[in-house]
Amino acid sequence: MAYKLTYFDLAARGEPARLIFAAANVKFVDNRIKMPDWPALKPTLEWGQVPILQFGDKTLTQSKAIYRYLARKFKLSGTDEWESSQCDELVDATSDLVDEFVKFVFKEPDPVKQAEGKKNFITTTLPTFLGRINKRQMDNDGPWLVGKSMTWADIVVAEMLRQMSAATDPTALNGYPHVRKMIDAVFAHPNIKQYVDASRPS
Amino acid sequence: MAYKLTYFDLAARGEPARLIFAAANVKFVDNRIKMPDWPALKPTLEWGQVPILQFGDKTLTQSKAIYRYLARKFKLSGTDEWESSQCDELVDATSDLVDEFVKFVFKEPDPVKQAEGKKNFITTTLPTFLGRINKRQMDNDGPWLVGKSMTWADIVVAEMLRQMSAATDPTALNGYPHVRKMIDAVFAHPNIKQYVDASRPS
Ligand SMILES: N[C@@H](CCC(=O)N[C@@H](CS)C(=O)NCC(=O)O)C(=O)O
Ligand SMILES: N[C@@H](CCC(=O)N[C@@H](CS)C(=O)NCC(=O)O)C(=O)O
Repeated sequence: MAYKLTYFDLAARGEPARLIFAAANVKFVDNRIKMPDWPALKPTLEWGQVPILQFGDKTLTQSKAIYRYLARKFKLSGTDEWESSQCDELVDATSDLVDEFVKFVFKEPDPVKQAEGKKNFITTTLPTFLGRINKRQMDNDGPWLVGKSMTWADIVVAEMLRQMSAATDPTALNGYPHVRKMIDAVFAHPNIKQYVDASRPS
Repeated sequence: MAYKLTYFDLAARGEPARLIFAAANVKFVDNRIKMPDWPALKPTLEWGQVPILQFGDKTLTQSKAIYRYLARKFKLSGTDEWESSQCDELVDATSDLVDEFVKFVFKEPDPVKQAEGKKNFITTTLPTFLGRINKRQMDNDGPWLVGKSMTWADIVVAEMLRQMSAATDPTALNGYPHVRKMIDAVFAHPNIKQYVDASRPS
């Protein structure tokens, strides 16, 4: 079964899927679209966007549907339906944060408004989120968000926090030791570490 | 096992969960927050938002995590992982549409910009989405989006399209007969029909 993941040559919404493949040590075709090729490709896609995952005669779109599908296949969704739902909850909560980041920082065209948006993200939106995750993690023995082993929720939350803090405030995680511990554990996972050391897009 | 769903006294993001309960004919506590009570309740919630689902000592937040959990419990997620992932894809694609609706129509404070946003939603965003779903449905024998029986994807897509077309253009579905057929089938489902006839919030 050959998997092909199509995305831009960026981390963004593609990287969590690549990290899930890496964690499971499953080879895949990492199809990175060159920007000049995008205008011709876009109209051929059912939903006009990427990431998409292809295997056999099937195509799956929507980043979270892709992560979840791979995570289930590779046993990274927790041990029962409740753990699986907690992964869903954490990933969707992270999506809400990513949407704020994209809207007020990443896609804001007016530089004055963007500076304001970034400031608000750094001082309010991101700390609120980090505080919630940190609190949730206080009751956990290990580093993982859900259950006793790494799930796709750890991978998605760690990678998106890595991207957003790098783009806004690299010190953002100071003061949230339980979140830091989870992120460090994800990137210390041997398969993930090997993949990241070999090829991290920015 | 008593389920309690907490949301505002509105359709919006709460109604698909209520419809999933109705479809499965499972009783639940339909806890509708009165607006004056919200400011006191909000800070007590882990993520500060609703809907939330409670049962036993567990609380699940995030609307789609809630729908998916209930759908799995009630066997409304398709017959295998692939069908389940197609449900995920369709629901997330619908979320993208709902986000556009909320941003440019529902939450836009400037009335001129809101009128523009609404026009753009009616003439471009919504028809693009409907065209895609309609095309996908052309290859299907039955009315359902995924597989051979009703799934939570049908319920979520039908209900959100009902809400958004009612708020922007009640004729929006004309010209998309395959989408219409799916929506009609959802609301003709005996359990759903009974619930809707008895109590539809607007
Ligand atoms: N909800 C979708 C959003 C997909 C999305 O926004 N894709 C962007 C890249 S992150 C894209 O394809 N942009 C190019 C375009 O829309 O033309 C998902 O999670 O997959
Ligand atoms: N991504 C969340 C969004 C939840 C959300 O936006 N909830 C709104 C109602 S639809 C809310 O609680 N608003 C009140 C507030 O934020 O104070 C979900 O899907 O559940």
